[in-house]
Amino acid sequence: MEITILKRVLDKNQNKADEIRQLLKEKGIIMLNLISSPGAGKTSLLERTLKFFAKSMRLAIIEGDVATDHDARRLQSFGFPIVLINTEGGCHLDSNSISKVLDHLDLSQLDMIIVENVGNLVCPAAFDLGENHKIAIVSTTEGDDKPVKYPALFREASAVILNKIDLIPYTNFRRDEFYRYMNGLNANIPVFETSCTSEEGLQAWYEWMRQAIVPPGTGACII
Amino acid sequence: MEITILKRVLDKNQNKADEIRQLLKEKGIIMLNLISSPGAGKTSLLERTLKFFAKSMRLAIIEGDVATDHDARRLQSFGFPIVLINTEGGCHLDSNSISKVLDHLDLSQLDMIIVENVGNLVCPAAFDLGENHKIAIVSTTEGDDKPVKYPALFREASAVILNKIDLIPYTNFRRDEFYRYMNGLNANIPVFETSCTSEEGLQAWYEWMRQAIVPPGTGACII
Repeated sequence: MEITILKRVLDKNQNKADEIRQLLKEKGIIMLNLISSPGAGKTSLLERTLKFFAKSMRLAIIEGDVATDHDARRLQSFGFPIVLINTEGGCHLDSNSISKVLDHLDLSQLDMIIVENVGNLVCPAAFDLGENHKIAIVSTTEGDDKPVKYPALFREASAVILNKIDLIPYTNFRRDEFYRYMNGLNANIPVFETSCTSEEGLQAWYEWMRQAIVPPGTGACII
Repeated sequence: MEITILKRVLDKNQNKADEIRQLLKEKGIIMLNLISSPGAGKTSLLERTLKFFAKSMRLAIIEGDVATDHDARRLQSFGFPIVLINTEGGCHLDSNSISKVLDHLDLSQLDMIIVENVGNLVCPAAFDLGENHKIAIVSTTEGDDKPVKYPALFREASAVILNKIDLIPYTNFRRDEFYRYMNGLNANIPVFETSCTSEEGLQAWYEWMRQAIVPPGTGACII
């Protein structure tokens, strides 16, 4: 019975996600779904990213949080539309909430929507939001075995951001083990090693974002 | 419909948790439920704790993981019974799984059972396992605002372990903000500042554990 209901919830979520994906395709908008543990650096990454693209990309942010508007407030100053979805205890965003938010955004004015999911490495991976790319963010301080311990996300992600590399000298994080685990799950995925504190490695991530909004086959290049 | 089912799942979980709590009370066993984000240091804390109590407390460990037996293997060498519950993607342990594990432990030989829940700051807080105490573990590298962003756990916990304090100098963690958030949620809760790397602060945690197994009103003191 519970399994039937869970299947129905997931099916309903999937149908709405497919609708969203179709709508965004028609509008020429790419959507990213940022997923990580609490405190891995999603909001810090967004602060850097929004600052960098303030004048060269038309972005909107959908901010998912269990409670508070802390993260949404941190992102207010960059001039992009930000919508907060407060899940009030819920452990992930779903496509129905995203769909309602899209009704309130001017989609004709956007290149990309970035969703910051609830801080959780498990549940958000199971709920398609209609995104083009799941982005897994993992910090070095969480240890090198997170990909193999939480494999669903790392298998499905289009890119991984390995954040807080400035802290590696103070931890027991083993880079070779991390890549060994990643290769076992998703061998060809780009991994961006970053520090949102020192700003190391962020340029490669920005370049990936730029490429993500280029329509396939057009040869267009946004500089 | 979905809410009805969720309520039924939670009610069923609660009934089984109440049974477990009664059983453990009869056997004189205290159960702790360790909850944190992925990589906050639950297993490292357990490594230290099991080593410390190797000869002075009769412990058993129930290890919850989404995938792999990495953590269970890390804890094998201390001579305590360890049971792994692999949730195969599930985001939390439930009381039914715990109940099945208890059938396979010799409860007449235990003072305390420590459950290491799935790495997740959201879902495990909603599922009572029949424990006497939820222990929230949060690392300084996750930032100082985790209590207020994930309030359910921090409201219900009997103790908080603020781990990785050795890394504070390399992060923007603000101790005063952390305590301000904690005081707003759960003012009288003990907070143990620890580093499982330097072993700083662990003695106070061990002492709390010792006190936890003393039957109330007996005046007994285990040294």
